Amino acid sequence: MYRSHNCGELNASHINQEVTLAGWVQRSRNKGFLIWVDLRDRYGITQLIFDEARTQKEVFEKAATLGREFVIQVKGTVIERESKNAAMATGDIEILVSELTILNAAIIPPFTIEDETDGGEDIRMKYRYLDIRRNPVKNSLMFRHKVAMEVRNYLSNQGFIEVETPVLIKSTPEGARDFVVPSRMNPGQFYALPQSPQTFKQLLMVGGMDKYFQIVKCFRDEDLRADRQPEFTQIDCEMAFVEQEDIMGVFEGLASYLLKELKGIETCKFPRMTYADAMRKYGNDKPDIRFGMEFGELNEVAQHKEFAVFNSSELVVGIAVPGAAAYTRKQIDELIEWVKRPQVGANGMVYAKYEADGSIKSSVDKFYDQEDLKKWAEITGAQPGDLILVLSGDAHKTRTRLSALRMELATRLGLRNPEVFAPLWVVDFPLLEWDEESERFHAMHHPFTSPKPEDMALLETNPGDVRANAYDLVLNGNEIGGGSIRIHDKETQALMFKYLGFTEEQAKAQFGFLMDAFQFGAPPHGGLAFGFDRLVAILGGQETIRDFIAFPKNNSGRDVMIDAPSTIDNAQLTELSIKLNVAQ
Amino acid sequence: MYRSHNCGELNASHINQEVTLAGWVQRSRNKGFLIWVDLRDRYGITQLIFDEARTQKEVFEKAATLGREFVIQVKGTVIERESKNAAMATGDIEILVSELTILNAAIIPPFTIEDETDGGEDIRMKYRYLDIRRNPVKNSLMFRHKVAMEVRNYLSNQGFIEVETPVLIKSTPEGARDFVVPSRMNPGQFYALPQSPQTFKQLLMVGGMDKYFQIVKCFRDEDLRADRQPEFTQIDCEMAFVEQEDIMGVFEGLASYLLKELKGIETCKFPRMTYADAMRKYGNDKPDIRFGMEFGELNEVAQHKEFAVFNSSELVVGIAVPGAAAYTRKQIDELIEWVKRPQVGANGMVYAKYEADGSIKSSVDKFYDQEDLKKWAEITGAQPGDLILVLSGDAHKTRTRLSALRMELATRLGLRNPEVFAPLWVVDFPLLEWDEESERFHAMHHPFTSPKPEDMALLETNPGDVRANAYDLVLNGNEIGGGSIRIHDKETQALMFKYLGFTEEQAKAQFGFLMDAFQFGAPPHGGLAFGFDRLVAILGGQETIRDFIAFPKNNSGRDVMIDAPSTIDNAQLTELSIKLNVAQ
Repeated sequence: MYRSHNCGELNASHINQEVTLAGWVQRSRNKGFLIWVDLRDRYGITQLIFDEARTQKEVFEKAATLGREFVIQVKGTVIERESKNAAMATGDIEILVSELTILNAAIIPPFTIEDETDGGEDIRMKYRYLDIRRNPVKNSLMFRHKVAMEVRNYLSNQGFIEVETPVLIKSTPEGARDFVVPSRMNPGQFYALPQSPQTFKQLLMVGGMDKYFQIVKCFRDEDLRADRQPEFTQIDCEMAFVEQEDIMGVFEGLASYLLKELKGIETCKFPRMTYADAMRKYGNDKPDIRFGMEFGELNEVAQHKEFAVFNSSELVVGIAVPGAAAYTRKQIDELIEWVKRPQVGANGMVYAKYEADGSIKSSVDKFYDQEDLKKWAEITGAQPGDLILVLSGDAHKTRTRLSALRMELATRLGLRNPEVFAPLWVVDFPLLEWDEESERFHAMHHPFTSPKPEDMALLETNPGDVRANAYDLVLNGNEIGGGSIRIHDKETQALMFKYLGFTEEQAKAQFGFLMDAFQFGAPPHGGLAFGFDRLVAILGGQETIRDFIAFPKNNSGRDVMIDAPSTIDNAQLTELSIKLNVAQ
Repeated sequence: MYRSHNCGELNASHINQEVTLAGWVQRSRNKGFLIWVDLRDRYGITQLIFDEARTQKEVFEKAATLGREFVIQVKGTVIERESKNAAMATGDIEILVSELTILNAAIIPPFTIEDETDGGEDIRMKYRYLDIRRNPVKNSLMFRHKVAMEVRNYLSNQGFIEVETPVLIKSTPEGARDFVVPSRMNPGQFYALPQSPQTFKQLLMVGGMDKYFQIVKCFRDEDLRADRQPEFTQIDCEMAFVEQEDIMGVFEGLASYLLKELKGIETCKFPRMTYADAMRKYGNDKPDIRFGMEFGELNEVAQHKEFAVFNSSELVVGIAVPGAAAYTRKQIDELIEWVKRPQVGANGMVYAKYEADGSIKSSVDKFYDQEDLKKWAEITGAQPGDLILVLSGDAHKTRTRLSALRMELATRLGLRNPEVFAPLWVVDFPLLEWDEESERFHAMHHPFTSPKPEDMALLETNPGDVRANAYDLVLNGNEIGGGSIRIHDKETQALMFKYLGFTEEQAKAQFGFLMDAFQFGAPPHGGLAFGFDRLVAILGGQETIRDFIAFPKNNSGRDVMIDAPSTIDNAQLTELSIKLNVAQ
């Protein structure tokens, strides 16, 4: 062992002890006759002192050569510091060094190893091993470990068994794109990497495992949006002989436990909202309920006048922005430009300022009088001093646009406090959603989700209205998990595949094993999966997941540190029975 | 929830309670006026009783229709059994059923769901979800979970941080074959699946993570020998600022802890043996030391007579088989045939029976007198009643053959008791091994292993004699883990790549990121990895790993349950910029 103690543990109680420390040179200050070095490791920083009067000449001279990030080992005596630093765990002491060994020199790092670094995203990713030395990244990874340990201990104590499901599985065209792996031993055939262990966990239920979980890597070959990764981690769970309420109970328990253990926050029973209400009130199936600004639907009070824009709209809907009546014309114009950006897509926006004196001044005063506008205020919940913003058009698109505006304003107004945690269950999701491109229904959750028995009859007549036994757990405007009660009989599963446009042959080829399994005594079962990267980031008070992943990939799916993916040689391709098909 | 209790928890204290149970029909016995059903779930079996006199007619009639593996729910009263079964946790009670719901019928399973099943390996794998219902498989998976939890808790308590390293990495030709993944977004380029997280864990040490572990899936595209899997799980670890002794200390602690917690076995300090001694004494770098039969080298006492076979051999070596002097000629001939099989490859075998009366009768009495043979007995440690078996030839091959014979005999003699645990550290492995095929040295462990400083000078002159700072943990004749102190400076690493036949360009292209990292202050570090599947199997008292893996693949790398790998469609191939190259 290169050390007797780490760099975070020495304090006044160790004074006069001989110790050996090892670590990195964080910084050094040379006063000519005194040299101080901050020695850093995972556990903290300890100050070393080299004193011309008390340190051997040879050691003192070597200390003068130390550069940033040199790896050194020192022996010395713990002494009391003259100027103590109460902000540091080791701030009462320093080490008077008697021996110094340079274990490894370091060239100058491409960015500073400080909490606030001068390195941009690209350079930090290329030298991720240096980035990890920085407290924000190091602490995020340690926090992730802690969350994983708590999740495992909680679920294990609840009788869940962690079962590893295979990574080399079978490609299924449903859902996102699979990553595939050519099989050398089975020429012309491919494994796929799992988008989730869905079918395996259902088979474990058929196998009587009763309560399963796994913290598991999953893979999706999607065009990466910001803050998505091609490989990501899920807390994946499944239970047998349960109803929706049981599953929600267990995982509300888990989420409460994590909030309490990791953040010291006591939660009450999580509120619930139907998908339909979430869309109506927030234009979003994962509403952030840390703040208000609920949608007010204004059709009834805005479509009786001669304002053609509203009259021709399927939906007229507004929000009240607290305290924003004082916005200048310029500020409001900027907001109107913001909603007209292609990413949002509105054609325009109507506003009404609810002044402190009770009067309302709108951009459509030509069409609406004070009495009309008072109704707008009432319906959007606006108080004097608030700004009412109104969008109109196609119902779904308008809601989505107003939701984007609501979130943007909340961010600007500081209403999205990362230290406040507002969990919410969203329930009664639609079973199917219409896909414009393929002109058919897709499973909103996945094809194994069960419809609500009372809606089964609608499958033939109004498939879009069928509700599923499906639920999402939303935290601060992020979907952190979702699940459903599954279909567990062959007939219903076959029917579902039919409605999703599978031929019988396709269903059998891809999921025959599951339908076969259902014949041998499948129990009622259901489950849920949490996105672990996102959960950890939110619990860590961050919006982006990248610093909670040790070695993330960039938006082109590249690991710029190791430079992957990369070419492979022809012999390897031949062995795998494939050829490149790349335009030269 | 479909149940108030599970099938393993009811006992006499619950008598007269109304309960609801759900599970599978294990078996039913119909006596005409009484029907007993054994209801099974993960937790146990509870006996249900339907009584013509006390059960409603409709329920009684439905009970008569239940088949094996039907999934049912019952409500009823806990009553005392007339004939108690002390062997069952629930053996004091039964449930007088008042309501019966068939949750799912079952067709007849292809093999019996019993501890001893009539299903062969192939059919069990195809219907693995039914196989998992059997106690031996179910208990193995639950045991695996328990081991993983203990490993994580132990290491976490020791300050190790579990960090997830990426699965989509870069292909490197060194080592076994990689599985590769074509990148859609980077046409013509491929990710590889990790054979181990080796370079990433070293980068975590460069990054100051100090103590890392991960229970992690790894992948090797090898021709599968029996009991190997293309995807397997490792307990992967790395530590900084440590020497070999520190790492061995931590993981000896882990192994002792697991033996104590899981098997109730207290262990002393694990014995250690050099690689050279292990090869000399056992012909094997992972000797099973639960029993003796150490090798006796007989060159000095067997090469002075006119027996040309021995005189022309590099090595003459024997073992004493305890109590086997009584073997018949036929038994001995069978052993001789056994060592002559191509898998072992000996040309023949000499034997000497050390009779109870002290005389020795050998197959080479023509050349050796009693005095000679007494020396054989002395050197092999044979006692009266033992059988001495002697092989000769090329030293390395002969040792390997005698090792195979030793293990075979130990198995036949019942000396490999799965409930006895004999851990052993094997140390001082050679750094390099000669590869006949490529006619160059390969890294015995991997190219990142450091040579012993005192042997560095031999690298130029006798590379095969250089010892590494490498160590294996052996348990009952199985290598359960191995590791090394790594190289942590760029110069030594570059030198090592040179000795392994890398050009500078190749080394830079494949491992440039690691050598770059070493320039920024890499600490001394080392680590180890345990094969988790094997460890769990051995702790579970089994030699084969397959029942400790939920969904294993067969020897062609196929998952016969889901039928993977499989073909993918041309659109998918085109998107991935590859074509098939398969002889039609």
